[in-house]
Amino acid sequence: MKNLKIIGYGKDKGNKIIQFDNNIRHRMDETQSHYTMSVNAVEQALLVAECTIDDMDLIVYASAVGYQPIPCSASLILEKFEPKKPIPCMDINTTCTSFITALDTISYMVHDGRYNRVLILSAETASLGINPDQKESYELFSDGAAAIIVEKDETAESGVMFGMWQTWTQGAHNTEIRGGLSSLHPRHYTKENKAEYLFDMNGPKILRLVAKKIPEFVQQLEKEIGMTLGDIDLIIPHQASRALPVIMKKLGVKEGKYMNHVEEYGNMIAASVPYLLCLALEENRIKKGNTVLLFGTAAGLTISGLLIKI
Amino acid sequence: MKNLKIIGYGKDKGNKIIQFDNNIRHRMDETQSHYTMSVNAVEQALLVAECTIDDMDLIVYASAVGYQPIPCSASLILEKFEPKKPIPCMDINTTCTSFITALDTISYMVHDGRYNRVLILSAETASLGINPDQKESYELFSDGAAAIIVEKDETAESGVMFGMWQTWTQGAHNTEIRGGLSSLHPRHYTKENKAEYLFDMNGPKILRLVAKKIPEFVQQLEKEIGMTLGDIDLIIPHQASRALPVIMKKLGVKEGKYMNHVEEYGNMIAASVPYLLCLALEENRIKKGNTVLLFGTAAGLTISGLLIKI
Repeated sequence: MKNLKIIGYGKDKGNKIIQFDNNIRHRMDETQSHYTMSVNAVEQALLVAECTIDDMDLIVYASAVGYQPIPCSASLILEKFEPKKPIPCMDINTTCTSFITALDTISYMVHDGRYNRVLILSAETASLGINPDQKESYELFSDGAAAIIVEKDETAESGVMFGMWQTWTQGAHNTEIRGGLSSLHPRHYTKENKAEYLFDMNGPKILRLVAKKIPEFVQQLEKEIGMTLGDIDLIIPHQASRALPVIMKKLGVKEGKYMNHVEEYGNMIAASVPYLLCLALEENRIKKGNTVLLFGTAAGLTISGLLIKI
Repeated sequence: MKNLKIIGYGKDKGNKIIQFDNNIRHRMDETQSHYTMSVNAVEQALLVAECTIDDMDLIVYASAVGYQPIPCSASLILEKFEPKKPIPCMDINTTCTSFITALDTISYMVHDGRYNRVLILSAETASLGINPDQKESYELFSDGAAAIIVEKDETAESGVMFGMWQTWTQGAHNTEIRGGLSSLHPRHYTKENKAEYLFDMNGPKILRLVAKKIPEFVQQLEKEIGMTLGDIDLIIPHQASRALPVIMKKLGVKEGKYMNHVEEYGNMIAASVPYLLCLALEENRIKKGNTVLLFGTAAGLTISGLLIKI
C-alpha cells in the first residue's frame, strides 16, 4: 500500500440550473469561470485541511481540458494563492479519469517521501464545449471543480492499495474535441467547421466498446486485489452517462454500494470522481478504514480503477 | 536511486530550414504535422530498443501543447501503432520541462515495479503558435519531437538519482498562450484578438526572474546531490534562448560540459531536452556510468533539474 490520507476536500459547481426531464445540470453563470470554480474548490480544501497554500509540496491539475494552452493550469491557479515558497506545479491528463490517474501516480512520490502534502485539482467547464446538435452529450454535462489534499500517512493505515488503468485506442475517436491545439489551430475556426471545436461523442460506439472491455477489466482488477466489487465498501464511479446503473448491474454491484448522482449533477468530466469523493466525505458516507474504489472510463478509451483505504 | 535505463531513443524535426542571422530553425513543411513527427520519433525509439509497441507498459505524452483537447495525446499517437494489448496512456505537462517532469514522476513507478517499460514522447509544433510581431520568440523556435524508452534496470546501476522542480507563479504570465482552451474558447477568435491565440513572451521579465531564481535553485540542488554542476559529466539544458551560454557561465559551467545547440536547432519547447538526449546518445557523448543533469526553465515559471546515471 502507498501510504497517504485525505486531509482536505472542497468543491464548486455551476450556479445556473438547467433541467432536461428529470436531469438537473449545473452550468456556469456570468459571474463564474473555470478559474473561479477552481479557486473556490482549492480554498475550501485548504480550510478543511487547516492548511495554507504554503503547506503544500506539489500542486497537480488533473483535468481533460486546461485553462490555457501555456503555462500549465496548476501554476495559473496557484498564482491566485500567492505562495511564499516555490511549489512545483504539474498537469496530468487522462481526460475523464485524470483525477484517478493523478492520485495513483503521485501516491508513489508521497509514499517514497518526495512530497508530504499534495493538492490535486480537477476543474471542467463542459458547457463551453458542448454541441447543441448532439442532444445526448448536450444534456449530459455539468460544470464543476473539486480539490483534494492528501498527506503522507505515517501510521500506514490509509493509502492507495492498488491502481490499474488501460487504454484501448480503438476508441480514440469515439469522444473528441478536435480543435483548439496543434491538430487544428483556433485560426482555422469558421462558422462551417465550428463543430470541430466542440465535444463530439459517438454514444453507441462508446457503449459497445465499454460493454466489451469493462467486464474484462473488472475481472482482472478483482483478481489483482483479491476482492470482488461487492467486497468494497463504496464504489465512486465516473458519472459517464445515464447508463451507469445498467453497467453497475451488469457488474453485479448492488444499488447503495456505488454513488450515482447522474440525475442530480450530470457528468463533470474529470471533476466528477473527486466531486463525489468530496460529497462522500462531507456526508460521512465513508469512514476511516473503509475501502473505496475510484473507477471510471475516459476518452481514449481509458478504463481506470484505484482502490484506496480511507 | 530509482532504477531505470534508457533502451530506446528517436527524434524528428521540421524539414523546412529557416535562417535568422546565424540561427537555423527547423519548421514543419506541408508534408509534416505534430502527428507525423510524433510517429517518426516513436518508430525510431522502438527500433533502437528492439521492441514493438506491445512491449511498452505505459505511454506518456510529455509536452506543453497537446494534439487535440480530447482525448489525451498519448492515446491519439498510440492508436497509430495498433497495439494488441491495452497500454495505459497519460499526458504530463509542465510546459518546456514536461519531459523532465515525466521521467522524474514515472521513475517512481518503474522503480517500484508498477511498469517495466515506459515510452515518453515530447512533440511540439511551435511554428503554429508564434507571433511574427514578436521577433524574439518568432526567431527562436523550431518544431520537433523526441521519444525515449526506459526500462527497469535490474542491475541497479542506472537510474534517476535526484529530481527537483519548483514553480514561481510570479512568472505565470511571462510566457503564455491564452487562447484555445477554457479561458478563451476558439469561438471567440477574431482578426483583432488573434494574438491571444499565439505565444506571448515577455523576454526581459523572464530573464530577470530566471537570473534571480536559477542561482538559488542550483545552490539548493548542489547541496541535495552533494555535487557541484562541474562534477556532473554532462548537463543537457533546455534550449530556452540564446542567453544560454550567459546563464551557464554565471553558474560556473564550462563550455563543453553542457549541450548548446540553440543556433543549430532553436527552442523546441518540451522536445528540446529529450531531442538533445537522443543526440548525446546517438553521438556516444554519454556512456554507461556517466552522470547527466537534465535541467531547464519553463513557463510557470518552473525550474527543473533531474540527475540521472546512464
